[in-house]
This record gives sequence, C-alpha cells and structure tokens, in this order.
Amino acid sequence: MSDPSKASVPADSVAGRSEFALIEAITRRLPQGPEVVIAPGDDAAVVLVDRTPTVVTTDVLVAGVHFRTDWSGPDDIGHRAAAASLADLVAMGADPVALVVAVVAPRDTDSAWVLRLADGLRDEAAVVGASIVGGDLSSGDQLTVAVTAVGELGGRPPVLRSGARVGDQVAVAGRLGWAEAGLAVLTKGFRSPRALVDAYRRPEVPYEAGLSASTSGAHAMCDVSDGLLADLAHVASSSAVTIDVESAALEIAEPIASVAAAYGSDPLAWILGGGHDHAFIATFDADLPLPSGFDRIGVVAEPLPTPDGDRDASPEVTVDGQPWAGSSGHSHFG
Amino acid sequence: MSDPSKASVPADSVAGRSEFALIEAITRRLPQGPEVVIAPGDDAAVVLVDRTPTVVTTDVLVAGVHFRTDWSGPDDIGHRAAAASLADLVAMGADPVALVVAVVAPRDTDSAWVLRLADGLRDEAAVVGASIVGGDLSSGDQLTVAVTAVGELGGRPPVLRSGARVGDQVAVAGRLGWAEAGLAVLTKGFRSPRALVDAYRRPEVPYEAGLSASTSGAHAMCDVSDGLLADLAHVASSSAVTIDVESAALEIAEPIASVAAAYGSDPLAWILGGGHDHAFIATFDADLPLPSGFDRIGVVAEPLPTPDGDRDASPEVTVDGQPWAGSSGHSHFG
Repeated sequence: MSDPSKASVPADSVAGRSEFALIEAITRRLPQGPEVVIAPGDDAAVVLVDRTPTVVTTDVLVAGVHFRTDWSGPDDIGHRAAAASLADLVAMGADPVALVVAVVAPRDTDSAWVLRLADGLRDEAAVVGASIVGGDLSSGDQLTVAVTAVGELGGRPPVLRSGARVGDQVAVAGRLGWAEAGLAVLTKGFRSPRALVDAYRRPEVPYEAGLSASTSGAHAMCDVSDGLLADLAHVASSSAVTIDVESAALEIAEPIASVAAAYGSDPLAWILGGGHDHAFIATFDADLPLPSGFDRIGVVAEPLPTPDGDRDASPEVTVDGQPWAGSSGHSHFG
Repeated sequence: MSDPSKASVPADSVAGRSEFALIEAITRRLPQGPEVVIAPGDDAAVVLVDRTPTVVTTDVLVAGVHFRTDWSGPDDIGHRAAAASLADLVAMGADPVALVVAVVAPRDTDSAWVLRLADGLRDEAAVVGASIVGGDLSSGDQLTVAVTAVGELGGRPPVLRSGARVGDQVAVAGRLGWAEAGLAVLTKGFRSPRALVDAYRRPEVPYEAGLSASTSGAHAMCDVSDGLLADLAHVASSSAVTIDVESAALEIAEPIASVAAAYGSDPLAWILGGGHDHAFIATFDADLPLPSGFDRIGVVAEPLPTPDGDRDASPEVTVDGQPWAGSSGHSHFG
C-alpha cells in the first residue's frame, strides 16, 4: 500500500533503503542454530521443538501505514492482522495452531474498540481452527498489531518458495487486485463498490485451497502479500527459474473492471501489483490436475539469458513473455 | 516503569482500566481449542504442535513507555526486548529455541541503528542458544519492538504459577530492584552509579538458574517483570495461597543502598516493587536444597482469613507477616 506520508529521507535510513534490502542486511547478521530447519527468507521459518518441525511467522500492522481506523473497523483490522500471519503459515503448507498478539494502543483508546479487535483476531483464527493463546498490551502513540502464528506440518515437508521446477504450471487460489482496487476506492473518498471496499477491509483468504495444495503435490508456494509479480519474483528468484504469466488467464472481475474504467486506471496493474488479498500462488507438475480452488495463470521456464549472458540482470517474471512495464508491487516501507 | 505522560483519560479507555483488567476481559472472549495445554494467564502458553508441547509468549516494548533512545542504545534495547520474552519461557521451565521479531521504526531511523538493535536481539538469544528465525519491519511514528519466543520442554511438565503449596519455601534467583534504581538515577538526569544504570539498560537474566529450577523440583515459577510483590501475588492468587516475604532475607546491595540514601528513597520499595530485572521466583519443598543461584526469601502459607472471614479481601502477599504499605509494582499501561 502506498504510504501517504512519503517524504525525503536520508539514503541510509530505513526508508532510504528498501524494506527488503534492510531485512537482508539484518538476516546476514543472524546465525541460525542446529534447530533451524528453514531459516528466514520464506513465508515462515521452520524450527525443531523437541525434534518436531514447528512453523512460525510474525507480521505487524501499523495504523496509517497498513490500515486506517476511519476506513476499517476494529474487527476488520483484527481479521486482517490475523490473516496476514495465518496466510504465511498456510503458504508453507502448515496447519495453524495458535496465535499470540502484541497490541499497542493510544491511552485514550476505548476498551470496547480493543475488545472488538480481539474478536476479529479470534474469528479469523477460528476459520482455520487456531486459538489465540497469549498477548501483550502497551500504551503508545500509534495503534500497532503484531501477530505471531505457530503451525504444524503433520509430517509433511514444508512447501518452500524455492521448489518451482522448469515446466511446472503456475496456479493461483483466491482473489487478485480486489483489495488494491478497494484501497483505490477509499483513497478517492468513496465507499463503493462495497465488494471491493470489503475486500480491502477484510481479506477472504482461501486457506482450504492453500492447505490442499500442500497435500496435492505443490512444488512451491507463496502467499500474495506484496503483489502477484513481486511474490512470483520471490518464487522465481528462490527457485532460479523464470515465471511467465499468461494475462489472458487473469480474470478481470466486474467490479474491478468498472472501477478501473471509471478511474481511468489499468485493472491489470491492480491484479499484478496489488497485495493484501492473501491469495496463494503455487507451482505443480504440468500434467497434474490442479487442486480445488486453483486456476492456472502461467508457466515456469528456464532463466532468460540477457543479451550479454548476465542472468542476474534478466527479468524473473514476465507477462505474456515480456517484462511488465507497469506497477509491480509495493513496499510497506517505501 | 512509570509513564511520564500519564494524564486524565476516560474511565472506559485502555488507560482507564488497568492493563490486567483489560487483558482479563479480552481473555474471557477467547475460546481455547483442544491443542491448547496451558491457556493465557501464565508467563507463556503451551500448545500442542503435532502432539509436541510447544511454549510460546510475546512481549512488546515501546519507545517512551518501556525505553528511551537517549537512555539506552539500540543493542541495549535489543537485549532487553529479547530478555523479556526469553525470561517468560524459562519461567515456564522451557528451553528457548527461536525468536521472531516485529519492529516498527520511524522512516528516518538510521539503518545502522536497526542493525545494532538486531545485534542486541541476536546476542541475548545466543545466551540461551536460541536463533532469531524471522521478523517483520514497518515504518511508524514510534519505535516498537515485539518479540515472540518459542521454546521446548524436553518432556518435562511446564512449571506454572499455580503450583505453589502451603509450606513451600519461596526463593529468588537474580537481581531485585537494580533496574528500578537505575531508572530512578536516569530519571534524575544522572548516569551513575553505572552498575544500576547498566542493570536498567540491559538486564542480566539468570536463565541457567531458572532452567535448573524446572529440573530441580520447583512447584511454581514466575519471572519478575511487574515487581516482586506483584508477581508473587500472581503466584499466590493462582495457587490459592498466601506468600510471606522475610525482609531480612532481601539483600540491599551497596549501590542501591547508597542511591536510596542520597535520594531519600526507601530501597525496599525498589526491591519489592521494581520490575525489569527479570529475576525468577520459585517455590520448592521446604526441606529441598535450593538449586544453584536461588536464595530463600519467604514461605508459602494458608490463605489468611480476614476478620469477617472473606478470603477474597485478604492480602495475598505479606512482608514479615504484614501487608506492605509501600509501592507494590507498576503497570506499563498506568
């Protein structure tokens, strides 16, 4: 989501670097012990707890950056905060078990608001049978909700971003662009189409499809939180492949089409660049029937050589065989 | 720690209620699934991940509430933030395995500052052999660090607050009052005695003693984060007992004694009411030799009947047989 407070900052500040570059710099300084099965860099980490693989991930949402309290109710914010972490677990093929939540709220926040936030967290967790088992609460200037989710693999290997194989079909479960279009609607001061605004306020995460992908032979999986192209690029880069998206396979739903027409926007920019819907992208053997909920949107190919043979400079994701020239994701820290 | 920005707020706001009351109200709304072994209310929760008990806890530190960047360096803040969650795990008798960390930082925060924060988190985790396996980073107005820790029990039952038995001896491992005295020093604009200021900046948590308590027959355990009397009251209340502290057993260390004399303060108020040192309090059979690092400070007794027989109104913790009239803990949300 774009940050309306974007301003000039020193180049060596957290805003001067990209979020990803700073996270990479941090990660390089963190040694990983023998109990770490999957280190930072995927949707979630996997660690051995008494020899049992345990999946853990954390996400933080900040008022004015990830949500606005005049656009979303406390229950919506709770749903969204829980969904962000739960989708990360499911994208690893893990069944969510429990959440813990740290909340920072201004001192004059109404208690009822906080209780409704908890209700939203609880109800989103209930969709996947997870419980909220702990939390912390502090005063602070800015509403902040940090959710950590813990999940189990049931003996299955985790589904990583790095498993995509040349020739795989690429498939998606869930919505693309709905939340981003809803954000565009709210940003213009409107409240309708309601379906898009609701999609922004409270994502409908296809948890069941994500879990079925992990038991149906998915080679790689990722949830779409940064935007389809950005998250496909994570898969392509981790797997050392190229991914080509077939734009004809991307459905442009009616409300997105009509809002894009009204605003003079390219609906594909929302679909390819919008995050927050928490769809799942996964790759499967080319001849495998896709699990329920997944639709084919592209194919995994060899890395493209550039004219001078420098693979590092080649695009990792193409649309209909060409680099995409439009919006390709966003940064919360941008 | 006292909040210098305390001001008049509506009674039904997060600041109008006590932190504990609001957390209790939230907890009542959260159903706990069959995988939850120990529900919210102790230092940490225990959940079954593929049938393996897994201990999880989260703590959040906020600039201006829990730390000040002009009083503590980024590495200090990292150490303190990790220690808060690690101590909670160890107080359950759990061996820490992994941390995930959510950081919110203003857009103009220097990257080097964030890297040093990560170093502090990493180095504190290394003390107990835990790895930082994931995180999230967002822009925001106020530096905020939320740490979730995951630990293992090695087949042992968790050590709960509710296990204290009448006749038990009460023992403490680690420092009491040092961090609170250091905070008093900093609040007055001084930087010495250095030992106290350092204790506030970076706690020295007796992790090894805490873990040995869990393998040496501790009936109940808790870490001191709200203050000795407040945390003993949690143990007493959960265990339906009274705890009497023998003040003669509380060592008043030299720097605390001299600063208290200089400021005209009661050193016992810091020792009984100060949090942030993350000492461990535990109860053991009366005739058991205490594990290394623990010193006896009191005894577990029957609940005291009040004159009209109303046990609910009786004090849960006494000092030398009397209710303590001085400071007895603090609230981050107060």
